[in-house]
Amino acid sequence: MRTRIEGGAVLTAADQVAADVLVDGETVVAVAAPGAVPFEADTVVDATGCWVIPGGVDAHTHMEMPFGGTYASDTFETGTRAAAWGGTTTIVDFAIQSRGSSLREGLDAWHAKAEGNAAIDYGFHMILSDVNDQSLKEMEAVVGEGVTSFKMFMAYPGVFYSDDGQILRAMQRAGETGGLTMIHAENGIAIDVLVEQALAAGRTDPRYHGEVRHALLEAEATHRAIALARVAGAPLYVVHLSATEALAEIANAREMGVNAFAETCPQYLFLDVDELARPGFEGAKFVCSTPLRPAEHQANLWRGLRSDDLSVVSTDHCPFCFTGQKDLGVGDFSKIPNGMPGVETRMNLLHQAVLDGHLSHRRWIELACATPARMFGLYPRKGTIAPGSDADVVVYDPAATTTHSAATHHMNVDYSPYEGRTTAGAVRTVLSRGRVVLDRGEYLGEPGHGRFLRREPCQYLR
Amino acid sequence: MRTRIEGGAVLTAADQVAADVLVDGETVVAVAAPGAVPFEADTVVDATGCWVIPGGVDAHTHMEMPFGGTYASDTFETGTRAAAWGGTTTIVDFAIQSRGSSLREGLDAWHAKAEGNAAIDYGFHMILSDVNDQSLKEMEAVVGEGVTSFKMFMAYPGVFYSDDGQILRAMQRAGETGGLTMIHAENGIAIDVLVEQALAAGRTDPRYHGEVRHALLEAEATHRAIALARVAGAPLYVVHLSATEALAEIANAREMGVNAFAETCPQYLFLDVDELARPGFEGAKFVCSTPLRPAEHQANLWRGLRSDDLSVVSTDHCPFCFTGQKDLGVGDFSKIPNGMPGVETRMNLLHQAVLDGHLSHRRWIELACATPARMFGLYPRKGTIAPGSDADVVVYDPAATTTHSAATHHMNVDYSPYEGRTTAGAVRTVLSRGRVVLDRGEYLGEPGHGRFLRREPCQYLR
Amino acid sequence: MRTRIEGGAVLTAADQVAADVLVDGETVVAVAAPGAVPFEADTVVDATGCWVIPGGVDAHTHMEMPFGGTYASDTFETGTRAAAWGGTTTIVDFAIQSRGSSLREGLDAWHAKAEGNAAIDYGFHMILSDVNDQSLKEMEAVVGEGVTSFKMFMAYPGVFYSDDGQILRAMQRAGETGGLTMIHAENGIAIDVLVEQALAAGRTDPRYHGEVRHALLEAEATHRAIALARVAGAPLYVVHLSATEALAEIANAREMGVNAFAETCPQYLFLDVDELARPGFEGAKFVCSTPLRPAEHQANLWRGLRSDDLSVVSTDHCPFCFTGQKDLGVGDFSKIPNGMPGVETRMNLLHQAVLDGHLSHRRWIELACATPARMFGLYPRKGTIAPGSDADVVVYDPAATTTHSAATHHMNVDYSPYEGRTTAGAVRTVLSRGRVVLDRGEYLGEPGHGRFLRREPCQYLR
Amino acid sequence: MRTRIEGGAVLTAADQVAADVLVDGETVVAVAAPGAVPFEADTVVDATGCWVIPGGVDAHTHMEMPFGGTYASDTFETGTRAAAWGGTTTIVDFAIQSRGSSLREGLDAWHAKAEGNAAIDYGFHMILSDVNDQSLKEMEAVVGEGVTSFKMFMAYPGVFYSDDGQILRAMQRAGETGGLTMIHAENGIAIDVLVEQALAAGRTDPRYHGEVRHALLEAEATHRAIALARVAGAPLYVVHLSATEALAEIANAREMGVNAFAETCPQYLFLDVDELARPGFEGAKFVCSTPLRPAEHQANLWRGLRSDDLSVVSTDHCPFCFTGQKDLGVGDFSKIPNGMPGVETRMNLLHQAVLDGHLSHRRWIELACATPARMFGLYPRKGTIAPGSDADVVVYDPAATTTHSAATHHMNVDYSPYEGRTTAGAVRTVLSRGRVVLDRGEYLGEPGHGRFLRREPCQYLR
Repeated sequence: MRTRIEGGAVLTAADQVAADVLVDGETVVAVAAPGAVPFEADTVVDATGCWVIPGGVDAHTHMEMPFGGTYASDTFETGTRAAAWGGTTTIVDFAIQSRGSSLREGLDAWHAKAEGNAAIDYGFHMILSDVNDQSLKEMEAVVGEGVTSFKMFMAYPGVFYSDDGQILRAMQRAGETGGLTMIHAENGIAIDVLVEQALAAGRTDPRYHGEVRHALLEAEATHRAIALARVAGAPLYVVHLSATEALAEIANAREMGVNAFAETCPQYLFLDVDELARPGFEGAKFVCSTPLRPAEHQANLWRGLRSDDLSVVSTDHCPFCFTGQKDLGVGDFSKIPNGMPGVETRMNLLHQAVLDGHLSHRRWIELACATPARMFGLYPRKGTIAPGSDADVVVYDPAATTTHSAATHHMNVDYSPYEGRTTAGAVRTVLSRGRVVLDRGEYLGEPGHGRFLRREPCQYLR
Repeated sequence: MRTRIEGGAVLTAADQVAADVLVDGETVVAVAAPGAVPFEADTVVDATGCWVIPGGVDAHTHMEMPFGGTYASDTFETGTRAAAWGGTTTIVDFAIQSRGSSLREGLDAWHAKAEGNAAIDYGFHMILSDVNDQSLKEMEAVVGEGVTSFKMFMAYPGVFYSDDGQILRAMQRAGETGGLTMIHAENGIAIDVLVEQALAAGRTDPRYHGEVRHALLEAEATHRAIALARVAGAPLYVVHLSATEALAEIANAREMGVNAFAETCPQYLFLDVDELARPGFEGAKFVCSTPLRPAEHQANLWRGLRSDDLSVVSTDHCPFCFTGQKDLGVGDFSKIPNGMPGVETRMNLLHQAVLDGHLSHRRWIELACATPARMFGLYPRKGTIAPGSDADVVVYDPAATTTHSAATHHMNVDYSPYEGRTTAGAVRTVLSRGRVVLDRGEYLGEPGHGRFLRREPCQYLR
Repeated sequence: MRTRIEGGAVLTAADQVAADVLVDGETVVAVAAPGAVPFEADTVVDATGCWVIPGGVDAHTHMEMPFGGTYASDTFETGTRAAAWGGTTTIVDFAIQSRGSSLREGLDAWHAKAEGNAAIDYGFHMILSDVNDQSLKEMEAVVGEGVTSFKMFMAYPGVFYSDDGQILRAMQRAGETGGLTMIHAENGIAIDVLVEQALAAGRTDPRYHGEVRHALLEAEATHRAIALARVAGAPLYVVHLSATEALAEIANAREMGVNAFAETCPQYLFLDVDELARPGFEGAKFVCSTPLRPAEHQANLWRGLRSDDLSVVSTDHCPFCFTGQKDLGVGDFSKIPNGMPGVETRMNLLHQAVLDGHLSHRRWIELACATPARMFGLYPRKGTIAPGSDADVVVYDPAATTTHSAATHHMNVDYSPYEGRTTAGAVRTVLSRGRVVLDRGEYLGEPGHGRFLRREPCQYLR
Repeated sequence: MRTRIEGGAVLTAADQVAADVLVDGETVVAVAAPGAVPFEADTVVDATGCWVIPGGVDAHTHMEMPFGGTYASDTFETGTRAAAWGGTTTIVDFAIQSRGSSLREGLDAWHAKAEGNAAIDYGFHMILSDVNDQSLKEMEAVVGEGVTSFKMFMAYPGVFYSDDGQILRAMQRAGETGGLTMIHAENGIAIDVLVEQALAAGRTDPRYHGEVRHALLEAEATHRAIALARVAGAPLYVVHLSATEALAEIANAREMGVNAFAETCPQYLFLDVDELARPGFEGAKFVCSTPLRPAEHQANLWRGLRSDDLSVVSTDHCPFCFTGQKDLGVGDFSKIPNGMPGVETRMNLLHQAVLDGHLSHRRWIELACATPARMFGLYPRKGTIAPGSDADVVVYDPAATTTHSAATHHMNVDYSPYEGRTTAGAVRTVLSRGRVVLDRGEYLGEPGHGRFLRREPCQYLR
C-alpha cells in the first residue's frame, strides 16, 4: 500500500518546501521534489494549494477522566476520533494512580479504556496521586513500559495533591529512572482557603473560580516546583501555564540553565477571564484550572511561545457537558467539574495565530507537533515528515475556513467554548500511519486503528 | 535624678555630633552642645573619646525556649543581664502558642517567665503554632495588649509548622488587626525528606545539618511567603535570612514595592558553614536554622545590609549548652537543639563591621537600634537619643577591645561561637531608662528593673 | 543673640519629637524637651502646632545661567530670596566652564555673581564643558576650594556635551580627587537626529520636545554613565531622572553595589507630558530636559523615592519668562530655552506628597534636606537640626495652605507651572544661620547674608 | 548529472534520519529512505557511518580586508577554498564603503575581488563607514541587489566608527528598506582613552589589548545598540559577542520581545584571554576585537547558544600572518592588525562541542548552517537538505579526527590559533551546488565555481 501526497508544500518545524511525500505502508519513505523520482502509488492525495504537515501531537488529554463525581465526557473512541477530525494524530493521555492503589492498577485501567478504541496512536503519562515507598519503586518499571513521564498536582488537596516532600521524592526517582516530572502548579492549600472564604461570603458564581485561583498562586507554585526540581537535580515540565507571573518564573529558570519546560493551551491564548462572568451559569463552560486569566496575559503568553519559554501548546482536553455535568456546580463554583474540550480545535486555532502574526508557520508545527513529540520521546516517529517517520500526515488547506460549533464538532460534549467563531484554514485530509482516516469531510477511520506508543525518555535532556 | 552624659559624640541613625545628653528621670530631655545649657546633674557620665549611642534593640531572642526536649539555657534573668553587658537595652522575645493551646495561655506563660526577672525592657512577639478559628480570633486582643507581631514557621513539621493555608489566614488577620507577620522561611516538608535520606545513608554528623537545609529551600520558602503576603495584602518580615538566593527574593519584592522586610544575624555575617565540619562533635555548637552558609554568601549579606534589602540585624539568641544539650544529637544531627547564643555579642560584632568597611557608623545604629525599634513599634521611645526618648544609652569606647570567650561572657551557656576572637570597641557604660546598669565592667542592674513594653504596630507601613 | 523655637515638633530625617530648638548665634546648641532646660533667649519663635524642620537643601539650581542666547531669569539675589520664601536655606548652583575657558574662569565668574547677593548660603558644583589636559589638572584645586562635584552632559552636542572619552577621563580624575561626577543623561547625539527629523517634518510645536527626547534615550545614557563610572571606578550621581526605564538602570546598578545615585525633581512627580501639548504655545512653559514624561512614570518615581533608588529631590531651577524668553522657540521647539522655575515650590509640593501617601514625614526631610546635604558634603552643618548644626530652621505649618501662582510667588519669572494649584501646608518662619529671614509672610533677609559653602566630598562613599 | 549520497544519516536543524540524499544537477530533489525509490545516479557518494549535513554557512568573513595598513591575508580564492576544506559552502563577506566613498564603489570593489575567484557561493554584507544623506539613499538600491544587511562600528573612531546619530539614521533606513543592521558593539571612544593611557604607562604588550577592551564597554555598546534599534523600530544583529555582560543585554532585550540577535565565534568558545599573555610577542596571534575574555565567560556563551540568546556561530575570519603583519604591533599593541583565521575550523570545532556536551547534534547544524541562512535570507536554498535546496552537502565522518595546524591547513596564514589541537570528526566529502569539490583529502573544486548570492531580507522578522 503506497501513497503519494503530491502538489503541496511540506511544512515542518524546520522547512517549508514544495515537495511530494511518498509513503510506503505505515511509513514515510521520501520527501521529493515534485516528479523528481518515480513512485508507483496505490493512492494519490492531492495537496495542491495546501500545507502538508505532520499530524498534530497533543501531549495533554484526559479521556474518561474521573473528576468531582463524574467523568470527562469523551471516551478514547469519541475523543481520538475528534482529534483526527482536528488534524491531531497522536495524543498522550494521563493514566491515573488513585489514592491507595498502585501505578500498575492505574496503568492497566487506562490500557483497558484505550485498547481497541482509539482512532489514532496514543501514549500515556502517569499521574501520581499517592507517592509512597511502593509507588516510588514502581516508577522504574513504568518507564520501562514506555510511560516516561509522571504528573503530580500541587493543587486539589485531598484528591490528587502531593505535598512538597512527595514531589521531591518522586522528582528524585523520576530523574534516576529517566522520567520527566510534570507539575500542575497551583498552591491548592492556599486556594482552598480562598474558596472557602468566597463561598462563606456568598460568592458562589463561576466567576469566583477565576478570582480565588490567583495568578500569584500559580506563579508561587511554579517557582516552588522549579526549586524542588533543582534540589532533586531533575527536569521539570509545567502543564497548562496561564499567568504572566508564572511564565516569568519559567523564563528565569531557563535563563539560569535549568531544565524547566512549560506548555500553555489554546484556551489561555484565545479566551479570557471575562468568559467566566457570562450571565447566568454560562461561565461554567469556561471553568478549568489553571483558570482563564485577564486578557492582558495573552500577549505575554504569545511572547513566551515565540521565545521558547513556552515550548508546547497542548489542550488539557477534559470536556464536561454543560447539562448534567457542569451544572453540578450551580450555587457552588467549587463543585463545577474543571475542564474544557479542545482536542479537535487546537491545530486550527494555532493556524489562525499564524495569520494573526503571533507565530511563524514553522513555529506552529514546532509547538503543536515536533516539540511535544521530542519532549515525550516520540521523535522522529511522530512530529515530523521525514524518511522513516510514521506516515501521520495532514493536508491542511489554508484557503478554507473552519467554524467552531457544538452543532458540528465531533467531541462528545454539548457546547463549544468557541461557539460561532470562524478561523482561517481547515483540515482536508488526515493520514494515520499511512492510512487515510479523514478526507474532505468524510471520516474513514475506525476504533482500534490507533496503537499504544511506548515512549522514549524526554529528548531535550542529555 | 538627673544625669549628664558629657564629652562624647552622639551617634544615632541620622546624626553624628559632639554633644551632651541630658537625662531627667527615665527620659532624655535634651541633646546639647557641650556646656551650651545649664543642667544640674546628680550623675555625670564621662563619655570623652566615646560614642554615645542608643541602647541596642534585639528584636529576636528566645529565652527559656522549649526545643527538642530541652530549653534554651538563658532565662530572662540571665539573658537580659547578658544583653545589658553587650550594650543591648531592649529585647523582643517570642511568646509561644503551643499546639492545642490558646494564644492567651502562651502569652501568660511568657509574662510569668519575664516579670520581675528582666534587667532591661522587653516586649513580646507571638508564635502561632496552631492557627485555627479560635486563635485567629484571639489575634486582635493580643495586638491590643501591645504584642503586635506574629511569627509562623514554614519549617519544623509537627512542631511549629503552619501550612500555607494557615499562614494565609493568619496573614490576612494580622493585616486587619495591625499585626506584622514574621516568617521562618525554610521548606520544612522538603527538608525533612532530605534529613531522612541523610540519616538513612549514615550521614549523621553536624555538618549534614548544613547540607540538608539547602539554600534553595530557604529561597523557595521566602518566595512563597512573599506570594502569600501579596495575596493577603499584608506586610511580611522574614527572620534570620542567611542565603544569597533568599535575599534576592526579598530584593525583588521590595523593588516591586511589596512591604517585605528581612533581618539577618551576626552568625551569618561572621561565621560560615565550615564551622559545622569541625572535628568531633564540635560542629554542633554552630547548629542553628536557617543554617550557616558557605562563606561566599557573606558578601551578599553585607551588600543587602547596605542597600536596605536587609533592614535589621538581630541575634536569634537561643543558646544550648554543648554539654548536656547539644549532645542530645550525637549520632543524629537532627536531634541537636537548634540555636546559638548571641544577645551579648551583637553590638560589638557590628562595630567591628564598621571598622571592616562593611557599614557606616550611622548604619550600625540604624540596623541595631533604630530600625528594629521602628519595625516593632517602639520608636522613638527606643532606638534613638532624642528629647522624650527613654534614656537607654550606651557609652561605647571605640579605642578599647572586646575578647569573646565563654570564660568571660555573661550568657548562661558553656561555649562561645567566637571563642578567642577579639573585636575593636567595647561597651563602657549602659543606662536603662536613666539608670546606670553597667559601668566600666561593673554590673549595677537588677532583676525586675526591666519592664514589659506595649508595642505599637510596625512603623514602616502606612 | 539667642533664639528659642518652642512648642513645635522637631522633624528630621530620623526623628519626630516634641522639642524646643535652642539657637546661639548662628548655631543650634540644643534640642530639648519643652522647658527641660533653662535658656535665656533674645527671640522666641512660636512653633505651636508646627513642624520644626531643617531648612531645605536644593542641590540643583541654575541662577543666571546662559542658555540658548538668553539667561535664566533669576539672579542669585532674586533666586535665593525666593528659595527662602519656599523654606529652602541652602542651594548648590552650577558654575560653568565654557568651552575654551578654564575652570578657574568659570568659578570666578560664579563667585562674582553670587557674592554679596545671596539671601541664604550657597555652594557650587562645576560644569565641565571642555574636558582636556588642562581642565583635568585644574580639578584637584577646585575640589580643594570646596567645589567637590563636577557635572557633564551627554546631551547638548556642540554646547555642553562631553563625549564618552572625556567623561571617562573626568570620572577617573574626579575619583582621584574626591569629586563626585554628576551626569545629565540623555543621548544628545541621537536626540539631535530626531529633532532634525521632527523639524523637517513640520513638527515644530512644544509637544514635540517631549517626543524626540525619548525615554529610552534617557535610559540608554543612564546605563552608559553607569558603565563608564564602573570602568573608572568612580561614583556617579544622575541628575533630573524622569523616566521609568532610567530608574530601572539606577536600581540595577545599586543592587549590584555600584555607587550610583540619582535625583528627580518635583516637575516629574507633579506634572506630565500632556502639559507640553497645551493649546497655542503654552506648552513651552513646561519645556525642560529631561522632558516631562507620560503620567504613568510618576508612580514609578514615587516608588523609587521610597526605595531609595532615587535619593534626592532637587529642583533644576532654571526659569525663563514665557514672554521674551520661551517665545524664542515659536515655530521651532528646539529653540525654546530649556528650564522651569522651582526653587520656591519644592518643599511645599513634597509636603503635599506626604499627605498624598507617597512619602513618610521623615522621608520628606531626608529627600529634601538631609540626603542632599550628605551627598554634597554639607552634613551635619546643613540638612539636620542637631547641636552644632547651622541654625537653618523652618517652622512649617501643616494646617495652612499654599496657593501657587505667578501673581504671588517670589521667583523672577512671569508664570508658574502650578498656577492656581493649592497644596497643604505653608512655610511660616525661616531662620538662616540663626537669623530670622522670613516670618509669617514678611521677608526679613537681605542680600549678602548668604555665604559661600566650602563643601566636603560626598559623604556616602568610604 | 545526478548524484546519490547514500548510507548516511541525514542531519538537519530539525531531523536526524537514516536516508539517502538524491541530487539532480545543482539541487537536492529528494531525501529518501535507503533504497525506497529508484534513482539512476551518475555519481554515488558513500556516506556509510557518516552524518550527511548541510554545508556550513559562515555569515562573517573578511577576505582581503584592509586594516591597519595591511590586508587580511586570505583572498576570495584562498579563503573560499579553505572554507570548502572545512565543510563550509557559503560565506557572507563584508563589502566596505570607505570614508568619502559611495556604497556603489565599495560594492563594485568587492564584486571585483570575488568574481571568478570563489570556490563556493558567497554573498555580501555592506559596511557603512560614512553614513550621510547620499549613502542613506543608496541603501535601498543595495538591498535590491541582494545585499540585505549593513554593518556599523561603535569601535574604531576615525576609521570605521559611526556615531550614535549615524547609527540611528542608518537603522531607520535599514528598517524601511528591509535591511538588517549589524553592529560591532564596543565603546571605541572610551576604549581609545584606555589605550592611550596604557601606552603612556608603558603597557605595550599584546596582553593589554585584552585589558583595555573592557567587557563592560562591550556590554555598554550592546545595550546602546539595542536602545537605538528600539528607537528606530528596526531589528539588530550584534556580531562577535564575547562577554557575559553583553550576552545579558541581548537576553534581556529578547525577553522583552525586541528583534535582537547575536552571534559568537569559535575563538570565544575555545580560547581565552590567557593566550594574549603568551611569552614574547606570541599573544599577537590572538589579537582580535572584541577580544578573547577570561575563561569563565565561556560557560555563559555555551549557555547562550543553548538558550538561543546567541543564534549563530560565525568566524569573523580575518587572518593576518604573524610574520610581516601581526608584527606591525611590536612595542605597541594598538598597531597589531585585529583578526584571526577561522573559516576552515568552525565546523570541526563545533562538532567537538557536541561531543563535549555543549550542544546537541541538531543545534550544531542550526547554529552553523540553518540559522545563518535564515538570518541572512538564504533559506531554504542554503542551510538545510530538502527538496529544492542547493545541493551544498557535507559528508561528515564522526569517527575520524582532525588535527589543527598551520602545516596542514589551507588558509593563507602562517599560524593556527589551535596549533596541535585534535578534534573529533572530519569532513570527508563536500558538494557545492551538486559538484563534489572535496573528497577524502582531495580538492576537486576550482575558482569561479562559487557564485554571488542575491539574498532575501532576514527571515526571522515579519
